[in-house]
Amino acid sequence: MKVCRRETFNAAHRLYNPTFSDEKNEAIFGKCNNPNFHGHNYTLLVCLDGEIDPETGYVIDLKILSDIIEEEVKEPFDHRNLNLDCPEFADLIPTAENITLVIWNKLRQRLDEKYTIELTLWETERNSVYYNGK
Amino acid sequence: MKVCRRETFNAAHRLYNPTFSDEKNEAIFGKCNNPNFHGHNYTLLVCLDGEIDPETGYVIDLKILSDIIEEEVKEPFDHRNLNLDCPEFADLIPTAENITLVIWNKLRQRLDEKYTIELTLWETERNSVYYNGK
Amino acid sequence: MKVCRRETFNAAHRLYNPTFSDEKNEAIFGKCNNPNFHGHNYTLLVCLDGEIDPETGYVIDLKILSDIIEEEVKEPFDHRNLNLDCPEFADLIPTAENITLVIWNKLRQRLDEKYTIELTLWETERNSVYYNGK
Amino acid sequence: MKVCRRETFNAAHRLYNPTFSDEKNEAIFGKCNNPNFHGHNYTLLVCLDGEIDPETGYVIDLKILSDIIEEEVKEPFDHRNLNLDCPEFADLIPTAENITLVIWNKLRQRLDEKYTIELTLWETERNSVYYNGK
Amino acid sequence: MKVCRRETFNAAHRLYNPTFSDEKNEAIFGKCNNPNFHGHNYTLLVCLDGEIDPETGYVIDLKILSDIIEEEVKEPFDHRNLNLDCPEFADLIPTAENITLVIWNKLRQRLDEKYTIELTLWETERNSVYYNGK
Amino acid sequence: MKVCRRETFNAAHRLYNPTFSDEKNEAIFGKCNNPNFHGHNYTLLVCLDGEIDPETGYVIDLKILSDIIEEEVKEPFDHRNLNLDCPEFADLIPTAENITLVIWNKLRQRLDEKYTIELTLWETERNSVYYNGK
Repeated sequence: MKVCRRETFNAAHRLYNPTFSDEKNEAIFGKCNNPNFHGHNYTLLVCLDGEIDPETGYVIDLKILSDIIEEEVKEPFDHRNLNLDCPEFADLIPTAENITLVIWNKLRQRLDEKYTIELTLWETERNSVYYNGK
Repeated sequence: MKVCRRETFNAAHRLYNPTFSDEKNEAIFGKCNNPNFHGHNYTLLVCLDGEIDPETGYVIDLKILSDIIEEEVKEPFDHRNLNLDCPEFADLIPTAENITLVIWNKLRQRLDEKYTIELTLWETERNSVYYNGK
Repeated sequence: MKVCRRETFNAAHRLYNPTFSDEKNEAIFGKCNNPNFHGHNYTLLVCLDGEIDPETGYVIDLKILSDIIEEEVKEPFDHRNLNLDCPEFADLIPTAENITLVIWNKLRQRLDEKYTIELTLWETERNSVYYNGK
Repeated sequence: MKVCRRETFNAAHRLYNPTFSDEKNEAIFGKCNNPNFHGHNYTLLVCLDGEIDPETGYVIDLKILSDIIEEEVKEPFDHRNLNLDCPEFADLIPTAENITLVIWNKLRQRLDEKYTIELTLWETERNSVYYNGK
Repeated sequence: MKVCRRETFNAAHRLYNPTFSDEKNEAIFGKCNNPNFHGHNYTLLVCLDGEIDPETGYVIDLKILSDIIEEEVKEPFDHRNLNLDCPEFADLIPTAENITLVIWNKLRQRLDEKYTIELTLWETERNSVYYNGK
Repeated sequence: MKVCRRETFNAAHRLYNPTFSDEKNEAIFGKCNNPNFHGHNYTLLVCLDGEIDPETGYVIDLKILSDIIEEEVKEPFDHRNLNLDCPEFADLIPTAENITLVIWNKLRQRLDEKYTIELTLWETERNSVYYNGK
């Protein structure tokens, strides 16, 4: 049984690799490489796999999960510049893939090992990423 | 190959455990514990895994699946009070997890064993549950 | 210039008119007349028409509007039984039309007269109501 | 890590099996058997499973994936009659299942073997199909 | 007070003007001019403006409106070829604009004059039309 | 008769008024005042009101409207920093209201006076703005 919570946050970012030449950054990241940044409304779906507690009928109280997402994701990333404001991306390109990886690791530290964690992150209505730690 | 059908139903419910004290029910279920009930538009996605029939190009005629969902889910639960009107929840707290479990068992009895059944149930646009019988 | 804020709340309700016979209530309200109630996820869109303040670039700070909706709509109606818990519907059938009217009157008292108020309320993904006070 | 791209195309089709009698086609395919065709807005989600390239932070540049979908799916199927215009369906009933199978095989030939390919195809907002090649 | 009902139907169509040359049809209608047709999932929103009946709390019972849409729109257009199957488009190009006009006139004849009728028709998630009879 | 086209663009921005003190900017714009910017996926709906051309069945070819939106909105604003990259906002706070006003004026210059222009801009799934030039 898997339960899921959907949350949103808004952030600016820029995709570039400081070890690449300007030409290579342009060729690979195109308009995502704008040095003045652009931004997105990110939508995050967090799913936890576990047993139903027969006393509550819950796998987990989604209010608790929502509070953890608030602390670990919305507080540090919402209305931020991922490149400039967030130490997690000091040496990591803030692609949707890497944002998902960072969030997964942060949630893994906060959630009981008995839960499997699956994340889906939509960067736009057309582009998304899924990660389950494997 | 998996085929999916999306249906909706509307119901009232209340989350509480009669073996808990009032204080514990309040602490665990919060405003979901309102003794006068509240309600939701539930959205259900039913997915069946099977082989394509080469004669029809169908895994299953989704009209047939839709009719079974009508009989097993919409007829008993739509515009009902899950706690008061539905014997399935006489001794089971109607959380999204338990509603999903009940629906899965009802559909399992109606569908050929050759089909794997996966359910996703959205209680709100932010909260959902997934179950595949494992 | 019109600015809009979308919020959601979940509630139980029952449609019936105590001056009608049971047969007439059944004929008019059908399964919405279930004496044990059913429920919905309501989605509310509140739009205010006004001038842009040149100093802020805002018609209104939507955080302020959101707080007023919290107090006037979500606090009294979310996770409630509209018939039993909400005095606004003691003598008023809680159809989507009447819920919209009640919310409009509540918001009208809280918002500066300079703003025109337009409401859209979705009771399901198929049924909605619009009201602008005229 | 899985990355996904969502695209849309619009097409006409008819479901019928030339080896069936008219009565059997009618019984099985109902109004989908209209000899003059009907049509859909198809929504396709293509997901690829792979490793993050540490230099780019990408599993794959979704622009590249989008271009391949353009060539293999949108160019041949968008604004077409699947039965009459598309040789892929000369001897294959263009059900959502078979359309998904055909697209999967076309994409499989264009994408590096290191990527697992998963497709979800929505024929309407209620009916969808999922296929991952297994 | 305005109440709205959302319905869907799927149809094939072709855009071309028989008085135009092939070149002009191609220049104006592009791929919508495919002689073998293409198709869409159409989403229709029907809104009626009227007074709330104090006895029922309804502007109109949306079940009644839904039944009329079933008869006037879904029965004649769903799973049809608008050009070949529907006499309404024998001499009228089935653009979203003209489909909306035809539906508006059909509903106008079925609905009490006291109701204003507003229609929104989505041909795709990007293209839509609005008409209110003026 | 009104026809509408939906487009999206992604941008970074910061809300602050250089004539305000830091404290006042913080009090009014809150986290939107982050000096390192944040960002959004903007969704724009452009509606034009006009007569149906009887020869084409179109109010306007939406391909033409889409091309104008591409040139006037997506080319200058997509994947940009509205404050730093866009001269339109050199002296104008890039709130959703002002972005809508700027886009309306740009489209007004490109579209025939016979069309009324209505814009809806969603900054998030909860916040939106509407403007029709009045």
